[in-house]
Amino acid sequence: MKLTFSPASPFARKVRIAAIELGLIDKIELVPASVAPGTPNDDYQRITPLKKLPVLILGNGDVILDSYVIVEYLNELAGGSLIPDYGPTRWKVKSDHSLLQGMLDSMLLCRYESITRPEALRWKAWLEDHWNRAWSGMARFEARDDVLSGPFTIAQIGLVCVLGYADFRFADCGWRKAFPRLDKFHQKMLQRPSVKISVPPAA
Amino acid sequence: MKLTFSPASPFARKVRIAAIELGLIDKIELVPASVAPGTPNDDYQRITPLKKLPVLILGNGDVILDSYVIVEYLNELAGGSLIPDYGPTRWKVKSDHSLLQGMLDSMLLCRYESITRPEALRWKAWLEDHWNRAWSGMARFEARDDVLSGPFTIAQIGLVCVLGYADFRFADCGWRKAFPRLDKFHQKMLQRPSVKISVPPAA
Repeated sequence: MKLTFSPASPFARKVRIAAIELGLIDKIELVPASVAPGTPNDDYQRITPLKKLPVLILGNGDVILDSYVIVEYLNELAGGSLIPDYGPTRWKVKSDHSLLQGMLDSMLLCRYESITRPEALRWKAWLEDHWNRAWSGMARFEARDDVLSGPFTIAQIGLVCVLGYADFRFADCGWRKAFPRLDKFHQKMLQRPSVKISVPPAA
Repeated sequence: MKLTFSPASPFARKVRIAAIELGLIDKIELVPASVAPGTPNDDYQRITPLKKLPVLILGNGDVILDSYVIVEYLNELAGGSLIPDYGPTRWKVKSDHSLLQGMLDSMLLCRYESITRPEALRWKAWLEDHWNRAWSGMARFEARDDVLSGPFTIAQIGLVCVLGYADFRFADCGWRKAFPRLDKFHQKMLQRPSVKISVPPAA
């Protein structure tokens, strides 16, 4: 299997962590890819019209997207427990992951607004709204002891990726001071090799 | 159950179609909600920090998001077949849906760029890039006979919502002329009461 990959992508990091934890990483070739809004990349768009990372390309050529569905696929392939199979916990973990995914989407929109977009065209209300979504989401998880102390699932992976991306692209945002329990959770997670090896490189 | 809802949201429409097809619509109260980027809505953000439609609120207060996970939940609740249970078809349908979901995300970004954002702050390359993702995606499905003529799944529902949203917000884009097989598919889908009743109101 091939995974289109960039060490800067929090979505690609999510899949990488899952693949390591599931014991599948040796079966996956990480294929470097680079995409940016406003910049064409016709070769990559032939793989996925969305021009987004990551996608998983199977041996038969089938393309699996997005990062969430890839983790579902790998989890089923390995018989893993990153997503509970049934019951209320299943929907809680899935909904937590959707929230974290949306927080990452908003953080990327903040990045594009404040760096990629030409300076004269930036809209403060948009930036503040999307940052507020990410920040309110962190505040929500600060109070979620069941996630912070619970079993290792795609929700914990998603939260690690949110916090790592905050360090990577919004180093001065002050999340550790505002959310001490998230800080403690993040430190604990960094003891896992999968999390440690996938920390984004210094910006 | 309560579903936060707006007739203009293609994501809410997706859930509504699924709920009708699964025979669950009578158990769901549609609760009107209004959200827009750049405009605060603190009440709604207490339900979901992402400030996005729709979410499903269960009787016990649990909140399920996003639209995809809600459809998964309803499908399991009803023992439906909107998402295949196993095998290669399962991952094909899920990946098709992810592509359609990303196309809708890009179409909403186009709408925000060309209408919501102050005129002086619009960035043409961003608009063109996101429109290109949606358009390339439509071209991809124009060639997907297995989806256009296949069983009724969340991929077909997603495609209906993309095309309906194109009519609703980009009425002059000319998708019917460019993609005659999508047009035929759309006409066929409109014979389903669930699809017909949920067509967005005239803009």
